Amino acid sequence: MRRAVCPGSYDPATNGHLDVIERASALFDEVVVAVLVNQNKKGLFAIEERLDLLREITSELPNVRVDSWQGLLVDYCVQNDIASIAKGVRVVSDFDYELQMAQMNRRLTGVETLFMPTSPEYSFLSSSLVKEVAAHGGDVSHLVPETVHKRLLQKFA
Amino acid sequence: MRRAVCPGSYDPATNGHLDVIERASALFDEVVVAVLVNQNKKGLFAIEERLDLLREITSELPNVRVDSWQGLLVDYCVQNDIASIAKGVRVVSDFDYELQMAQMNRRLTGVETLFMPTSPEYSFLSSSLVKEVAAHGGDVSHLVPETVHKRLLQKFA
Amino acid sequence: MRRAVCPGSYDPATNGHLDVIERASALFDEVVVAVLVNQNKKGLFAIEERLDLLREITSELPNVRVDSWQGLLVDYCVQNDIASIAKGVRVVSDFDYELQMAQMNRRLTGVETLFMPTSPEYSFLSSSLVKEVAAHGGDVSHLVPETVHKRLLQKFA
Amino acid sequence: MRRAVCPGSYDPATNGHLDVIERASALFDEVVVAVLVNQNKKGLFAIEERLDLLREITSELPNVRVDSWQGLLVDYCVQNDIASIAKGVRVVSDFDYELQMAQMNRRLTGVETLFMPTSPEYSFLSSSLVKEVAAHGGDVSHLVPETVHKRLLQKFA
Amino acid sequence: MRRAVCPGSYDPATNGHLDVIERASALFDEVVVAVLVNQNKKGLFAIEERLDLLREITSELPNVRVDSWQGLLVDYCVQNDIASIAKGVRVVSDFDYELQMAQMNRRLTGVETLFMPTSPEYSFLSSSLVKEVAAHGGDVSHLVPETVHKRLLQKFA
Amino acid sequence: MRRAVCPGSYDPATNGHLDVIERASALFDEVVVAVLVNQNKKGLFAIEERLDLLREITSELPNVRVDSWQGLLVDYCVQNDIASIAKGVRVVSDFDYELQMAQMNRRLTGVETLFMPTSPEYSFLSSSLVKEVAAHGGDVSHLVPETVHKRLLQKFA
Repeated sequence: MRRAVCPGSYDPATNGHLDVIERASALFDEVVVAVLVNQNKKGLFAIEERLDLLREITSELPNVRVDSWQGLLVDYCVQNDIASIAKGVRVVSDFDYELQMAQMNRRLTGVETLFMPTSPEYSFLSSSLVKEVAAHGGDVSHLVPETVHKRLLQKFA
Repeated sequence: MRRAVCPGSYDPATNGHLDVIERASALFDEVVVAVLVNQNKKGLFAIEERLDLLREITSELPNVRVDSWQGLLVDYCVQNDIASIAKGVRVVSDFDYELQMAQMNRRLTGVETLFMPTSPEYSFLSSSLVKEVAAHGGDVSHLVPETVHKRLLQKFA
Repeated sequence: MRRAVCPGSYDPATNGHLDVIERASALFDEVVVAVLVNQNKKGLFAIEERLDLLREITSELPNVRVDSWQGLLVDYCVQNDIASIAKGVRVVSDFDYELQMAQMNRRLTGVETLFMPTSPEYSFLSSSLVKEVAAHGGDVSHLVPETVHKRLLQKFA
Repeated sequence: MRRAVCPGSYDPATNGHLDVIERASALFDEVVVAVLVNQNKKGLFAIEERLDLLREITSELPNVRVDSWQGLLVDYCVQNDIASIAKGVRVVSDFDYELQMAQMNRRLTGVETLFMPTSPEYSFLSSSLVKEVAAHGGDVSHLVPETVHKRLLQKFA
Repeated sequence: MRRAVCPGSYDPATNGHLDVIERASALFDEVVVAVLVNQNKKGLFAIEERLDLLREITSELPNVRVDSWQGLLVDYCVQNDIASIAKGVRVVSDFDYELQMAQMNRRLTGVETLFMPTSPEYSFLSSSLVKEVAAHGGDVSHLVPETVHKRLLQKFA
Repeated sequence: MRRAVCPGSYDPATNGHLDVIERASALFDEVVVAVLVNQNKKGLFAIEERLDLLREITSELPNVRVDSWQGLLVDYCVQNDIASIAKGVRVVSDFDYELQMAQMNRRLTGVETLFMPTSPEYSFLSSSLVKEVAAHGGDVSHLVPETVHKRLLQKFA
């Protein structure tokens, strides 16, 4: 079984994330969307909320599973029999850092990283930009899934 | 009336900032130099000081106005009937992030971003570098306007 | 009068070009779309064809004028009282080269270059890519204006 | 069946190419190594030679097949039921151009591009650099497979 | 005497650092490895520990001296009669920032910066990545000198 | 003796080249300015002219020697007991390609490459841009040494 992980903070998931997850799910037998648990960095959404939102927005994708992980991503991959990390790359500066991470990860355990270009219309999109806009009352309804939008409105009500 | 905004932290304004403001003032009917008020990030100079310094160094430019803003820059633009954001870009890595911001801003409200290349002799210049050098007693007299230089000397006396 | 030039080879004009021209026409009093005449480089379309196509696709934009130029762009700007060069930038690697050209042009005559980010959905689009796809029978109808599409079909019939 | 193509000029194949092919062969059910036939660009090796060399160096990889293609890569993919293009990326400047190609290809037919970072030790390696070094009598034995090395020595004897 | 400084945080030194130091020591009469003392940023290793580790791993290089510095690097250079700063650059995004620093440093005192490309096999390596991996029990024995590895194991025991 | 080479086409030498040569001559015991002889690429200036111009503009620098080379630069270095290649880098995109060359050159013979950032005021300057401007009658007197300027005027008279 060809299994890939789409790792991230997903705080919260955007249309850009969903686009990458959908496309990865067409290329692999199973895709695990894995939320990083980082004790030192409190996000806007609790880990459980992020997982719930991800489960909701990927509910139509039968071969997508949602999970969380702590520690080294490559350890999580080895323990869960995942051979590939699938990452969306939006812009060149993403890539430079990601390339280093990918080479480190491969060196440590042989896990491969596959970069998928984001769709152009999402190339400017990031969770932090979405939160900043939403926090100031800007309209992000076209940038995140419907259910994420509702929760953002509640958070910043 | 063709109006542009030159947004920034201006903590403090450098010769590089002044260069971009002067050049923008030649291309637009009015240029608003707008200082970002960020409650979470205390700068070296108070907002009022930054505004005073900017007013002083742009006093010879009749079509330049100094202001501050909070929240989303695009909201400020819409409220003040500003069609363009004029930004200096020094180096390629600036551009990659700025490109994302520009596309988000345009998507939100239709406000355009115009990038102006900084003059080569200021390509290495940033407020934070100036502060770091001045804090350690380095000579920055050739990197900032005279009046900014005086205040920096007072701050680090 | 605030006048800008949108220079290029336009061999042929794409939806990406048109997007930049339209947006520039909203920011300046007059926009001159100027086709570079390069004796050493025969294009797919003759200069006259390119000018015709540009006139056709910009016919709804009253403050846009189409012209051609030879020699240094800055000389053309000075002779035609044009203060700014407006260029679309798609990706970071565009920018690096363009930054050099802009600094040279400003050094030579004081003409400014303003970079406008292309719309994300056109970030992958270039005349040469369009020609390559069309030459092999690929569908480019969604990448170029209707009238350009017709001529491309004739060229590669 | 999950099938990917590793396209290229392979004039000639290097250790860097082989590294990407091997790793792709572990991630997909079948990998097609496809040599671009470009009538306008005569290479050092004839297409047949390149195919022979590729067959020889991938003979241990049972799920790798060698082929050539003309025209648009995406047409080849559609005709051969290939859902993914797997490309090695060495450095950031590769990526900027490749990102454009990938977005165009996906727009045209939905074929995905997956970027695999090259192994760091091959990050400086390209066919053209290998040919330049070999042409001047430099030692490239550690940069290309043994069989490619022999043919290069014959070419430049 | 041609003297260069290899500045850094060295928290802790990696094989990549050692590679640059060794190569610099072959090009200059004396190389000073200088650890930045930053009061605001507590590292994993105390300054004294970092200096000890550096002395140990460079003990075979007779023209290498280990030291620490506070304040502006260029002041340290002037006081210690050092004409060049030798820095390893791994990837392009390193370079963009470093280029700015180098131009500032030269402007301030005339001290030159020389960039040495890291060996490809260390291009993905950084102290922070090493610490992150080691903190989670990953094996970094092949990424840092033996003595650094021992101390990392103690830290994270 | 610490010897470095400043390789290039120098067709013709610019103020940017001279800046790098002067600075390199302060850091090494001897600097060889080496002009690449490329049979396949006819330049504007003959090799002999380029050498003459370089000798003239470096005549005040006693430890600078002018020479030409053919074939692999690293072979020239080994034959002439040169341990370092000193290259000016202007912008990031220069660096990406140069990094590959540097790693190849070091792999082949152990010759090191040291990158020197060009002075910001020359960051936009290249021989080809100078020739293009001069060919169209633009003023390049402030971009090249006096003697180069005279010859350019003769060439394009």
